Amino acid sequence: MILMVRRNIVVERLRVPSMDRQKTELVERKGIGHPDSIADGLAESMSRALSKMYIERYGRILHHNTDETQIVGGQSAPRFGGGNVLEPVYVLLVGRAVTHVGKERLPYRSTAIKAARDYLKSCCPNLDLDEDITLDCRIGQGSVDLRSVYDTQRHLANDTSFGVGYAPYSETERIVLETEKKINGPWKKKMKGVGEDVKVMGSRKRDRINLTVAAAMVSGYIPDRDHYISLVEELRDMVHDHAVKLTDREVVVDVNTADNYKRNVFYLTVTGLSMENGDDGSVGRGNRANGLITPYRPMSMEATSGKNPVTHVGKIYNLLSLRIAENIVKELGGDVEEAYVRILSQIGHPIDRPQLASAQLVVAKGASFRKVSKEVKGIVDSWLTDIGSITDMVVEGKISTF
Amino acid sequence: MILMVRRNIVVERLRVPSMDRQKTELVERKGIGHPDSIADGLAESMSRALSKMYIERYGRILHHNTDETQIVGGQSAPRFGGGNVLEPVYVLLVGRAVTHVGKERLPYRSTAIKAARDYLKSCCPNLDLDEDITLDCRIGQGSVDLRSVYDTQRHLANDTSFGVGYAPYSETERIVLETEKKINGPWKKKMKGVGEDVKVMGSRKRDRINLTVAAAMVSGYIPDRDHYISLVEELRDMVHDHAVKLTDREVVVDVNTADNYKRNVFYLTVTGLSMENGDDGSVGRGNRANGLITPYRPMSMEATSGKNPVTHVGKIYNLLSLRIAENIVKELGGDVEEAYVRILSQIGHPIDRPQLASAQLVVAKGASFRKVSKEVKGIVDSWLTDIGSITDMVVEGKISTF
Amino acid sequence: MILMVRRNIVVERLRVPSMDRQKTELVERKGIGHPDSIADGLAESMSRALSKMYIERYGRILHHNTDETQIVGGQSAPRFGGGNVLEPVYVLLVGRAVTHVGKERLPYRSTAIKAARDYLKSCCPNLDLDEDITLDCRIGQGSVDLRSVYDTQRHLANDTSFGVGYAPYSETERIVLETEKKINGPWKKKMKGVGEDVKVMGSRKRDRINLTVAAAMVSGYIPDRDHYISLVEELRDMVHDHAVKLTDREVVVDVNTADNYKRNVFYLTVTGLSMENGDDGSVGRGNRANGLITPYRPMSMEATSGKNPVTHVGKIYNLLSLRIAENIVKELGGDVEEAYVRILSQIGHPIDRPQLASAQLVVAKGASFRKVSKEVKGIVDSWLTDIGSITDMVVEGKISTF
Amino acid sequence: MILMVRRNIVVERLRVPSMDRQKTELVERKGIGHPDSIADGLAESMSRALSKMYIERYGRILHHNTDETQIVGGQSAPRFGGGNVLEPVYVLLVGRAVTHVGKERLPYRSTAIKAARDYLKSCCPNLDLDEDITLDCRIGQGSVDLRSVYDTQRHLANDTSFGVGYAPYSETERIVLETEKKINGPWKKKMKGVGEDVKVMGSRKRDRINLTVAAAMVSGYIPDRDHYISLVEELRDMVHDHAVKLTDREVVVDVNTADNYKRNVFYLTVTGLSMENGDDGSVGRGNRANGLITPYRPMSMEATSGKNPVTHVGKIYNLLSLRIAENIVKELGGDVEEAYVRILSQIGHPIDRPQLASAQLVVAKGASFRKVSKEVKGIVDSWLTDIGSITDMVVEGKISTF
Repeated sequence: MILMVRRNIVVERLRVPSMDRQKTELVERKGIGHPDSIADGLAESMSRALSKMYIERYGRILHHNTDETQIVGGQSAPRFGGGNVLEPVYVLLVGRAVTHVGKERLPYRSTAIKAARDYLKSCCPNLDLDEDITLDCRIGQGSVDLRSVYDTQRHLANDTSFGVGYAPYSETERIVLETEKKINGPWKKKMKGVGEDVKVMGSRKRDRINLTVAAAMVSGYIPDRDHYISLVEELRDMVHDHAVKLTDREVVVDVNTADNYKRNVFYLTVTGLSMENGDDGSVGRGNRANGLITPYRPMSMEATSGKNPVTHVGKIYNLLSLRIAENIVKELGGDVEEAYVRILSQIGHPIDRPQLASAQLVVAKGASFRKVSKEVKGIVDSWLTDIGSITDMVVEGKISTF
Repeated sequence: MILMVRRNIVVERLRVPSMDRQKTELVERKGIGHPDSIADGLAESMSRALSKMYIERYGRILHHNTDETQIVGGQSAPRFGGGNVLEPVYVLLVGRAVTHVGKERLPYRSTAIKAARDYLKSCCPNLDLDEDITLDCRIGQGSVDLRSVYDTQRHLANDTSFGVGYAPYSETERIVLETEKKINGPWKKKMKGVGEDVKVMGSRKRDRINLTVAAAMVSGYIPDRDHYISLVEELRDMVHDHAVKLTDREVVVDVNTADNYKRNVFYLTVTGLSMENGDDGSVGRGNRANGLITPYRPMSMEATSGKNPVTHVGKIYNLLSLRIAENIVKELGGDVEEAYVRILSQIGHPIDRPQLASAQLVVAKGASFRKVSKEVKGIVDSWLTDIGSITDMVVEGKISTF
Repeated sequence: MILMVRRNIVVERLRVPSMDRQKTELVERKGIGHPDSIADGLAESMSRALSKMYIERYGRILHHNTDETQIVGGQSAPRFGGGNVLEPVYVLLVGRAVTHVGKERLPYRSTAIKAARDYLKSCCPNLDLDEDITLDCRIGQGSVDLRSVYDTQRHLANDTSFGVGYAPYSETERIVLETEKKINGPWKKKMKGVGEDVKVMGSRKRDRINLTVAAAMVSGYIPDRDHYISLVEELRDMVHDHAVKLTDREVVVDVNTADNYKRNVFYLTVTGLSMENGDDGSVGRGNRANGLITPYRPMSMEATSGKNPVTHVGKIYNLLSLRIAENIVKELGGDVEEAYVRILSQIGHPIDRPQLASAQLVVAKGASFRKVSKEVKGIVDSWLTDIGSITDMVVEGKISTF
Repeated sequence: MILMVRRNIVVERLRVPSMDRQKTELVERKGIGHPDSIADGLAESMSRALSKMYIERYGRILHHNTDETQIVGGQSAPRFGGGNVLEPVYVLLVGRAVTHVGKERLPYRSTAIKAARDYLKSCCPNLDLDEDITLDCRIGQGSVDLRSVYDTQRHLANDTSFGVGYAPYSETERIVLETEKKINGPWKKKMKGVGEDVKVMGSRKRDRINLTVAAAMVSGYIPDRDHYISLVEELRDMVHDHAVKLTDREVVVDVNTADNYKRNVFYLTVTGLSMENGDDGSVGRGNRANGLITPYRPMSMEATSGKNPVTHVGKIYNLLSLRIAENIVKELGGDVEEAYVRILSQIGHPIDRPQLASAQLVVAKGASFRKVSKEVKGIVDSWLTDIGSITDMVVEGKISTF
């Protein structure tokens, strides 16, 4: 059963079990201190700062894309109670921006670098910005053709691209997401020794959920190996106790499984960040816009972070699809168990008129697909009409992109 | 119906229509000249060259990962019949490698750079390597912990990660893939004006396939606008004529839809590569290991290109899953319409003993799932036993990673 | 008349008028904020920090040379009362250092970067280190051959090289030197609008001294053009009033002669540093070890700043020659009007046994060359014996190198 | 006796012995393969290429300065008969150039990079440009103030600066200069094992000249240590035999004095260039415009290489002073033993009207200073009138700058 509307919206019934009912499931979250997440965060913070700078000066967001930050890992020598970063992390900030308006030259590089430094300050408390990291910038002028399209006709899609979103989170997904947010949030006060580079992997086989946490420990807060071992145990217990509140399934938790105490292998860092010692990172290789990597779910390859929030459909449609899916489930929660939304743009056409917007629904037993499909169509249509609100939320920092 | 074996192999029946029977479908291929593909290609060629260098000297592949190349777009001023690259493309080659063995220092950077240049020579015929591109290298020493794990116990998974693969290609997928391969292959001789940066997007709604091709044209081969326009038309016709041979569905082809002849907007480049003028690129953001981006299919976020082919499960399991799926369909083609394979590693455990290997099958009408599941189990088991063959094929360049 | 001693010391009589009695004279000083001086200062501060780090860990200074910092000018848009740096200054810190001792890896890069940042903080008060400058570091491992020489046999010359020094300063030289030191010293409090990038050029024809001062003004302290004009006048008066206290000759002062008030050309900067807007700088191209550029005097081309203060004769012999010349004039002031000292090393030989140490003396009327030459020989010999004191003074920051 | 003319030309008698009659003398030449010379050569070749590009397009040389190239040494592992460069040399090309004329963007970076590569090809025959070196470019837009001065009023001095030159070469100077030119010229065919990085140091004490040659040997041409030792001996003999033809003084030659055959220390390189293994280089730190470093002579600190040849007095006045001095000695050879010329500019004034042009003459016994001074004045005046010829010779590559 397919319904078509003026805005080429397709609603489709999906006859598969919802994720929670499937037999196996895989979910990953790269925490805010993972090199790929830091790259995403830097990219997005630069785009936000540039957007604000443009708005302040010209009342509108000018063309830019800062979605290609590259992190080159440093070298470090942590030891219990201390240690040093030997060679700083090198960060290459890459992208395009409008650099001149008429004769006025704009502080696009300084703005980007300041935003990047401020972001690092906020999310890497154990990183010494003066010594441990180098921020280099090769942001240049954008492609002339794209900019002329953009400057003369706003709100036209910059590319033929698509976005994907779904809702709701499965139980495993929610646990994985919240585990990282707890570790890098409220639990931090009592566990300062746990760094920001936390990776949580959840794999479910039927009713058993395995959570594997890799957490870079901060050497300065950990005087010796006993302290380390007990911190790992404490973290495991906290993750477990928290997870079992969110599910009735069996939960098994492993922390830092690559450690080998006998051979004195510990996941110890000076800064709480694996990039201090050889781990590289780049934009768009970590979490999708919903904060997770979900190989059992449809995903977009487009990097959401760092793209301009006005015309870059690779960004807007991912964020929009997710919000539409969430909205559908919220409004029609009894009838729709799961919603998948995909939007496909056409380069040069208005972004509120996608080539195709499709919603696939897992409908609850007893619910009428015909009925819900109408409402879903309305929800999709209404979000497309109001697509500018995505831009505003991005600039104001109300939407996370990774 | 699930079957378990010693090697934790799960075979599952998938009760969904195969992709060709679904109502909508989206497929994209970034051609070999797309900046993300070039980044992938550089990454993979460096890894292959390092692998060979290590094998030649020590009889084994030593630790390395070169999966983080960053391409920073240049500036150019093409015009019909000629034009110039004004500012070269900047390429930062990033990664880790074993740099010393005992007292012997290894030519890891020179090897990587030579491989990168050779790769560019082979796939960017219109790029002047002396003037139009800068190759910089920040490949450094890897994380000590990972290397010690690696050096002492070979064939242990370097991470908790997963790979995903499926087979066969849907009709639309095959068309998208082959279209780019034709353009950048046999058709090149008669269409030298079509550059290597070709992007093919296929969207199918029921029985109508839209192919949107964006092809960077090479200014030196195109004396004027009339020539350009007729070349675009010729390309459209060739794509169409080729596609209709592969499907009974309706096929609509668009080429360079962002062009606007009235306003003198053409997709013209000096080098046939959009990176010459502001387009950035990085590893792992383009095609998956099967050469496509398929948002309606499960995908892995792991970059396959540039990772070491011995212990990096993010690479090996993606390539392996794909081969297993292909093998299943080839062997059981009548009974299995579609196979999805996922393999999940556990850090520190032998790579031939994954935490979980799952195969989901769309079984043909009338076929016995019980019967095929046994055979599938055997196929999976056999590939895991022979997992080293993946490494060999990668080093010999017999497997494409993007 | 030449006297030879065991230590190959040659003392020679020079039958030329002392500089003050010559008819023309040219002297230049690049102030501490000139890009070449900043490069020198960064190079020297890194060497000092590395020396201290090595001493702290190993009780001795290990091999390093950090004498190749390159400053790439940024872009800025100053305006009266404010303005912005648009594109940060890029600084490439270059050099060699011992990076490992046995299995211990040393924080050579972090140490160098911290020293560089601290130096900039101390001498560029109007530079925002977070936004206006990027410090990148390519300090690597040194040449193995040189290091092995160095590590096994301390205090052997690293090169065949020479140092040159003379004393005393001529009147014009003293005025030029002190003018800059006043501007960037005690006068700063009342003239905050005058930046650190001050260049003083003195040219004397007989009894007339022309002082040309180019001073980057700090836009934030200068609300309008009238303020600027009066500040330039105030600076000119202060320079003049100060100079005439040091000489009986006529003094003419010009400040910012490239200004053109009618065409609104002012030497205005955001940071007080010309490197903010396109001026590049590098080590060893500015002041010699005595703080001046004196094309009418013998000079060494060797960069003194940033070289290791143990074996690098290009550094030690320049500093030593200067001190010996000063010492000669101080001890024998009535008899010796001017002393020129040159020391030539031989690679691989002890640094206290130069190939040749020569002193040329302008002897006062009535003084006995034979008598003073003996004493001079003794002074030279004594300094060579005590050559290690130069190293100590350098590490403690008691000797300026530019 | 001083003569003044409209053009502020001062001619002065110098009552010192000419250099050949002084008791000690020091001379150094860094050969074309020395890292500082390579930096000079790259800088100058880029300036020449940009000048030609501007002339071709606009009939005039637009503003640029490319006088800040930085070479960061690589890593290598030479061995008799072969060896490898492990880590490429990194070269940062720095400077300013006009990047746009009206709406036309110019290929300033590509032009610079091509010139740099062509230069390396011509002077580093054993360097593999594909593998052993990375050329990066941060040439940007120049300071706006300077450019506006420049663009509106041609031929005005860009700075208050000076140039210095003298003639003739002393005997030792000629020997040092020619030795390197022979080694890197006609002798190359029969001594391929001698690389381009040759440093010649000449020190004279009275009638004995010591020549110390440091020559990087090319491992690929030297199968074993015996070959190396005999090549060193051959080189020593050739240098000696050549030198004694040019002087009646005693000549002692040393080659590669840091070698230690017992300890297996040889000056062996893969490329014939010490920069392959840790030696850095930068512009303006090597030879002066006459090809030598002469600490017993007046020298300018200004880098001559890479500066624009139209308004940059730091370049033009150095080249001009040298030519004037040569001209004086050529014309008045019997009467003038030695001539020193110095020219001081004033920023913003026409370059043919320097603030001061001074010539100091060592007059031959019996010659009339009054008479020669008139002629010298005429020579200086005539060269200043024809100052544009310096620009032309530079662009055509007829003048060496280092």
